[in-house]
Amino acid sequence: MPTGRKPQPAKGFDIEDYLAQRTRAVDQALNHFLPPAVTKPATIHKAMRYSLFAGGKRMRPALCLAAAEACGGSVEDAMPLACAVECIHTYSLIHDDLPAMDDDDLRRGKPTNHKVFGEGIAVLAGDALLTEAFIIGAKSKGWPRYSHQEIILDLAGAAGSKQLIAGQVADLEAEGKKISSDQLKYIHERKTSALLCCSVRLGGMSANCDPDQLAALTRFGYNVGLAFQIIDDILDVTQTSEQLGKTAGKDTAAQKATYPSIVGMEKSQCIAAELTGCAFSALDIFAGKAQALTAIAEYLLKRNR
Amino acid sequence: MPTGRKPQPAKGFDIEDYLAQRTRAVDQALNHFLPPAVTKPATIHKAMRYSLFAGGKRMRPALCLAAAEACGGSVEDAMPLACAVECIHTYSLIHDDLPAMDDDDLRRGKPTNHKVFGEGIAVLAGDALLTEAFIIGAKSKGWPRYSHQEIILDLAGAAGSKQLIAGQVADLEAEGKKISSDQLKYIHERKTSALLCCSVRLGGMSANCDPDQLAALTRFGYNVGLAFQIIDDILDVTQTSEQLGKTAGKDTAAQKATYPSIVGMEKSQCIAAELTGCAFSALDIFAGKAQALTAIAEYLLKRNR
Repeated sequence: MPTGRKPQPAKGFDIEDYLAQRTRAVDQALNHFLPPAVTKPATIHKAMRYSLFAGGKRMRPALCLAAAEACGGSVEDAMPLACAVECIHTYSLIHDDLPAMDDDDLRRGKPTNHKVFGEGIAVLAGDALLTEAFIIGAKSKGWPRYSHQEIILDLAGAAGSKQLIAGQVADLEAEGKKISSDQLKYIHERKTSALLCCSVRLGGMSANCDPDQLAALTRFGYNVGLAFQIIDDILDVTQTSEQLGKTAGKDTAAQKATYPSIVGMEKSQCIAAELTGCAFSALDIFAGKAQALTAIAEYLLKRNR
Repeated sequence: MPTGRKPQPAKGFDIEDYLAQRTRAVDQALNHFLPPAVTKPATIHKAMRYSLFAGGKRMRPALCLAAAEACGGSVEDAMPLACAVECIHTYSLIHDDLPAMDDDDLRRGKPTNHKVFGEGIAVLAGDALLTEAFIIGAKSKGWPRYSHQEIILDLAGAAGSKQLIAGQVADLEAEGKKISSDQLKYIHERKTSALLCCSVRLGGMSANCDPDQLAALTRFGYNVGLAFQIIDDILDVTQTSEQLGKTAGKDTAAQKATYPSIVGMEKSQCIAAELTGCAFSALDIFAGKAQALTAIAEYLLKRNR
């Protein structure tokens, strides 16, 4: 079990208001970066935008922007990378929801992409968002310590066959099987933690952070990412579909291993809190400039949807 | 109708031997760049390699390398870009063959990816190859006139929702409908010409070519790409599945519009030859250094599979 400081509230920081502001800014930037819905062929651009603007919480972009702030960078410089990560996240949801994968009808309270546009277009909309992520990522300005080469390699590495896709494959292969907590951790680290960690790293890179700061952000991102997925596992059991905006109880229905099913509910909550504690302690290096990162980590631990 | 010089054979150039050599070099490089098949989770890396090493003709990499040569560049410098393009081409085939799209059982004489690995893994193998293309592309060395930023934008632009994916969407939407020759040209330009043109451009960029050379390569690539797809349309009618290594007659079966079905067989052949002529004339600027490009264009026009 990981060790670390007990989660401490970020005093005097209105996280709900902060996240609402960030969501508006990210939505505006995504709208700017994505081809307009009327761009020919309209079907694909409508399908891309349908899932991208379906009410996502923009947690990955928020983490990216907050990491940039912690390193003294600007929202403007970090924004293309924040949007690139959100495109990759949305593509992965569209493909995960396909009948050949999790076969889900509901996402963020709305019918999934293939339910609206059909399977063929849903596959292509995912493909297009993945490709668009690299277009947007490459439009970032590049920094003395982090060239476009490094930015693209970080982004593609987190999305690729050894991370995000590896997690999805292992998840598919584990369905209906009894797996160990180590195997489940392997899946969660790749399926969720990798891209969340990448969001935070890219934010730091966009502020031209030093290697120590990048290492601290990596530790923070890894721990917050894993905690995030454990909380997701817990919410799948404790919340209703209406509360989640997606099908609740589907892990149990699909006989998917989750933290609660393997280590029990109480221990799952304890591990998520411990991981968040580890994430907090990674932020010491920023000497009080990481207030937003702290507040987001705490918010993610205590959320109920 | 395009105008241009009549195709001239490249004298004393053994194209079959040249392409066989290139194929070996490209296969070796792809094997080097791709994660080994045993990389965890093995399923995805096996699936990626299954389609990547299924006997593709490597025409896009060959064009990329030949374009580099025409501009005085090296095979070594161009190779990562040649491999990146082949990964994108292979990903597009895997997704095109899915039941939700063209629903094809046979590709390059072998069962399609989803027939071997199942639909879920086939979607992910395509996703992984698309992502890998950006990893490999970003590993190229970067050039004074063409930074990694420009390389990635060219590659992602050709693969994205306004080009390759636009072509596939328009193709899906045109199925069973009567379309004009302009609409068919729109599909072919995007579904085939865009990535083929990109291959040639990236080869030139890897040789740090000047803007005039890049414009010439773009014209060459566009024309060869369109000719290539028209010949594909023709072969779908005239050849057997065994000869093609993929299901013959499937355009007709799927009520897909093709050049022969819209303008007739004879005129289709004439247009392909004219386009190849245009491609030849674009190469004048290279003053004899584009022998391989010339020979490949001629080979593509006269091929029977």
